[in-house]
Amino acid sequence: MQALTEYLNSEYGIRFNNNALLIEAFTHSSYVNEHRHLDLTDNERLEFLGDAVLEISVSDYLFHEYGHHPEGLLTRLRSEIVRETSLYHFSLDCGFDQYVRLGKGEEQNAGRKRPSLLADLFEAFLGSLYLDQDLKAVENFLSKVVFPKIKGGVFSHGMDFKTKLQEYLQQSGEVSISYELVDTFGPAHDRFFVVEVYAGGQILGQGKGRTKKQAEQMAAKSALDDLLNNKS
Amino acid sequence: MQALTEYLNSEYGIRFNNNALLIEAFTHSSYVNEHRHLDLTDNERLEFLGDAVLEISVSDYLFHEYGHHPEGLLTRLRSEIVRETSLYHFSLDCGFDQYVRLGKGEEQNAGRKRPSLLADLFEAFLGSLYLDQDLKAVENFLSKVVFPKIKGGVFSHGMDFKTKLQEYLQQSGEVSISYELVDTFGPAHDRFFVVEVYAGGQILGQGKGRTKKQAEQMAAKSALDDLLNNKS
Repeated sequence: MQALTEYLNSEYGIRFNNNALLIEAFTHSSYVNEHRHLDLTDNERLEFLGDAVLEISVSDYLFHEYGHHPEGLLTRLRSEIVRETSLYHFSLDCGFDQYVRLGKGEEQNAGRKRPSLLADLFEAFLGSLYLDQDLKAVENFLSKVVFPKIKGGVFSHGMDFKTKLQEYLQQSGEVSISYELVDTFGPAHDRFFVVEVYAGGQILGQGKGRTKKQAEQMAAKSALDDLLNNKS
Repeated sequence: MQALTEYLNSEYGIRFNNNALLIEAFTHSSYVNEHRHLDLTDNERLEFLGDAVLEISVSDYLFHEYGHHPEGLLTRLRSEIVRETSLYHFSLDCGFDQYVRLGKGEEQNAGRKRPSLLADLFEAFLGSLYLDQDLKAVENFLSKVVFPKIKGGVFSHGMDFKTKLQEYLQQSGEVSISYELVDTFGPAHDRFFVVEVYAGGQILGQGKGRTKKQAEQMAAKSALDDLLNNKS
C-alpha cells in the first residue's frame, strides 16, 4: 500500500490520517474471500457511503456553477456524471486499477478492468476520504479529476440542441431565448416549418423541419454551430 | 413568512441567516407562475440540492449507527428512508404543508396535501438549510425528525429479521434457532402475541405483535439489535 499512499500524496496532495481506511477502500470482496484468515473488510460499505458523498459534492458544484440552470437540466447533468461509465473512467484516469486488491479468480476474469468494479472503487475511495477527512477534502480531489470535465462539456452530449443552447447562453447570466415560427410551406401532408431562434432580441439561427419541434431543434443547432465556430 | 421563521426557531431551534433562502424553499412553482410580475424563484433548484443533502446525511447516519450491517442492508434501508412516501410523512410531521406558498389552481386541486409536492418541499427545505448553514445543521434537524424513526425501526418493515438473524448467527457455524410463544393477551379482536427467540438454549430476544409471525419478526429484530450493538 506504500506505493498508493505515495502516489496519492504526490499526485493529489492527499495524506490519510488513518491508512486502514484507504486500504479498506482498495480491498475488493474477492480478495477478502480468498484471505479469510486475515479478517479483512472489503470496500462495499465505503462504496455505500461514497455514493452519497459523490452525489452531494457534484450537486453542490452544479448548483453553484450553473446558477441559472433549471432543476431538470441539473438533474440530467448529475445523472450523467455519477453513472457507472463515468465513474469507471474517473477511476482509470486516476490509475486506481493499478492499486486495487483482487482475488485470483477476479484477476483472471479481468476484474481489474471491469467497469462496475472500478466505478465502485472510485466511490469507495471517496467514502474513505470523507471519513478520514471531510467533504472539503473530497471536493478538493474532485476539483482535480471531475469538475474540469464537467466544465469542459464532457457530460453535455446527448442533450438536445435547445437545452445545449440554453446551457451555453446562460453561462454568462440569465438570458431570454425565444423561438418564432416564421414560415410554413408545402401541402398539408408534406408540410415544412421554419423557425428562428432569438436571444436578447437578436437572431441567432434558423432551422427547418417537418414539425415545429424539429424546426426549433434545427434552429438551436444552427445557432450553436455559429456560436462555437466564432468562439474558436 | 414570519410565522414560519418563528415556528422553526421555537420547534427546532433553527434561525436562518438569509430568510430569502427559506422563502424560496417554501415557494412552489405554481405560486411563481401566478405571480410573474414579482420575479420569484420556485423551490425546484433547492430540491435538487436537498435530495443529495438528505442522501449524504442519511448515509452517514446509517454507516455509523449500523457499523456491522453489510452494504446491501444499508442500501435497502436508505432507499426506504429517502423514498417519496417517507419524505411526504416527514413533511407532514413537521407541519410544512401549512407554510408552503401555492398557486390557486394547485390549492384547489388539494396540492397542499399532495405527497410528491410535500416530499419535494422537504428536500427543498434541507437544501436551503444546507446553503444557509452547513451539513451539521441539517444533521441536527434530521436527528429530531428522521433519525429517531430509523432507530425505532419504522423503515425496517419488509425486511425479514428472522432470515437476517439466522444469517448472522450462522456466520460462525451451524446453530439451531427456535421461537417460542410465551404469552398472548387482549380480547380476540385485539390480541397480542409475545414470542421469545432462542439459540443454543440461550434467550436472545423477545418481541410482541398482532400475529405470531409479527411477534417472531420483532423478537428476531430485538436479538439482532442486541447482537450488533454488543459487537461494536
